[in-house]
Amino acid sequence: MKRTAYVLGVDLGGTKISVGAMTADGSRRLGLHSQPTLAAEGADAVVGRIASMIESVMAQAMAETGALRGDFLGVGIGSPGPIDREAGLVITTPNLGWHDFPLRDRIASDVGLRATLDNDANCATLGEWWIGAARGGRNVVGLTIGTGIGGGLIIDGKLYHGSSDAAGEIGHTSIDAAGRRCNCGNYGCLEAYASGPAIADRAREALAGGEDSLLTTMVRGRLEQLTAQHVYEASAQGDDVAREVVRETARYIGTGVANLLNIFNPDVVVLAGGVAQAGEDLFGPVRTEVRRRAFRPAVEACRIVPGTLGGAAGVVGAVATFLARHPAEA
Amino acid sequence: MKRTAYVLGVDLGGTKISVGAMTADGSRRLGLHSQPTLAAEGADAVVGRIASMIESVMAQAMAETGALRGDFLGVGIGSPGPIDREAGLVITTPNLGWHDFPLRDRIASDVGLRATLDNDANCATLGEWWIGAARGGRNVVGLTIGTGIGGGLIIDGKLYHGSSDAAGEIGHTSIDAAGRRCNCGNYGCLEAYASGPAIADRAREALAGGEDSLLTTMVRGRLEQLTAQHVYEASAQGDDVAREVVRETARYIGTGVANLLNIFNPDVVVLAGGVAQAGEDLFGPVRTEVRRRAFRPAVEACRIVPGTLGGAAGVVGAVATFLARHPAEA
Repeated sequence: MKRTAYVLGVDLGGTKISVGAMTADGSRRLGLHSQPTLAAEGADAVVGRIASMIESVMAQAMAETGALRGDFLGVGIGSPGPIDREAGLVITTPNLGWHDFPLRDRIASDVGLRATLDNDANCATLGEWWIGAARGGRNVVGLTIGTGIGGGLIIDGKLYHGSSDAAGEIGHTSIDAAGRRCNCGNYGCLEAYASGPAIADRAREALAGGEDSLLTTMVRGRLEQLTAQHVYEASAQGDDVAREVVRETARYIGTGVANLLNIFNPDVVVLAGGVAQAGEDLFGPVRTEVRRRAFRPAVEACRIVPGTLGGAAGVVGAVATFLARHPAEA
Repeated sequence: MKRTAYVLGVDLGGTKISVGAMTADGSRRLGLHSQPTLAAEGADAVVGRIASMIESVMAQAMAETGALRGDFLGVGIGSPGPIDREAGLVITTPNLGWHDFPLRDRIASDVGLRATLDNDANCATLGEWWIGAARGGRNVVGLTIGTGIGGGLIIDGKLYHGSSDAAGEIGHTSIDAAGRRCNCGNYGCLEAYASGPAIADRAREALAGGEDSLLTTMVRGRLEQLTAQHVYEASAQGDDVAREVVRETARYIGTGVANLLNIFNPDVVVLAGGVAQAGEDLFGPVRTEVRRRAFRPAVEACRIVPGTLGGAAGVVGAVATFLARHPAEA
């Protein structure tokens, strides 16, 4: 009898590192360990910590399933871009301060397994396509809305990387040429309006007039502690200020998504990250805005759905990117 | 000895119909006949006219080369979208008033040759990629800037159509969510700022203050006759008003192109149509704006070039779309 093969996935994020394992057929997920990313500790320490997280996920999976070490095919790694897939390098990370760091080979040699490297938002999109909300799609646009806005494109059932692995930076498309300066240097980027911190900023601006709002109560008047999550929760409870901020967020996201529909004519747009929890308060107005702006044949071809994998999307997708390079049959 | 094979191309535009022939290897172009598109005459008359143009292009090509009727493999047709490629239907044309019109099969039966149908801006992009400015590109974005702004995407050396043949409407991506209303119903579309008529409108607005300008002289004070072409010419002659309109145009186009670089990381962006004649007055500032806005790895991977096929791009590309479906070897 053929033994079950397993693949490990690593999602290296700006705030946390997550590691998990999956069966190579995608039918079963095992363990999802997370630790905060500590920028101060340096690249060697981060690699060491990832390697030990991989070891403990493997140990747990072996204990749970009877798998042997030889049943693990390798490790897929997702990292914030830009990256060089062929060379396995993280070119730069604003948060960790790395430059041309050979993350793939360092981890491969530490754990003694083959490894692949891809962009984290690409991984999240591929994860949602493999076993999540975008399953069955042929042309998929993924947006992961969190601290920043990452994006991924699946074209004809394959992750699209562009001419130098830099494709998919959908959060950094301008929807207002003369608008807010973005961290990336551009003006009016979607990320400058609809990332988590941008949503919190807009809520603070809305409260500056001194209006009564549940939001103020939730953070006991400490508005600097407001997050997008507070805004979604207050909106769900009917708070007027929060609802208006969510509606405005939907208009921004809807404008960006409409642009993508007109350019790409995808069959699925999956919105993952914190917004996936915002529910119909957000998704209803997003769909309305897209209908108002995009061409009808593109609107009719496309479903716009929340991600279903939550924080695991990156890890699942990292496994999928490994398998795209090293199929389990080979 | 193997006989040379030929393919016919038809470019059905809003203002004119062009028909030409090419050798199937792309090495030689034969004849380019053009007639104005007369919206009033109805679909049957348009089909009849296209068929007779095809006949005269074939007759001329046979006279020039000694080709026989049997050496013509078929006809590629480019039409303004939306279209249904599989069914060969023009779904709607704002200018001609057609609905679900079986253009492909009507022409095929009139001339007794196989035919294919694709979007006109897709054809223009494919033409520039096959034998024009985008030659050698793997991932190409094409923008045809004329009465409107059409677009086409080549991904991994193949025209990308999206999930329902609606991809590539790059002219209808918003670069100002709250901006000018576009003919398509959306707000702030690139087309609303940088199409030929939009450029002429902005020039008229710039002249409204009564400033001295060559533009006024060129149209003998009849500002309603101003076109984008006048603006490019006056700019080339150093006219200040025209130069500022061209610079502003470059900023709009640059914003749209920067968005495409961040999304799509192409190796070539080809700008065709009237703007291709505008030269470095336009292309210099476009490149500057793109560098200012897009991510460096995407900027470094990409050349931004004017189309070289002029009015023939659509016909050349229509031939190429036919050959993509029916390779000459088969």
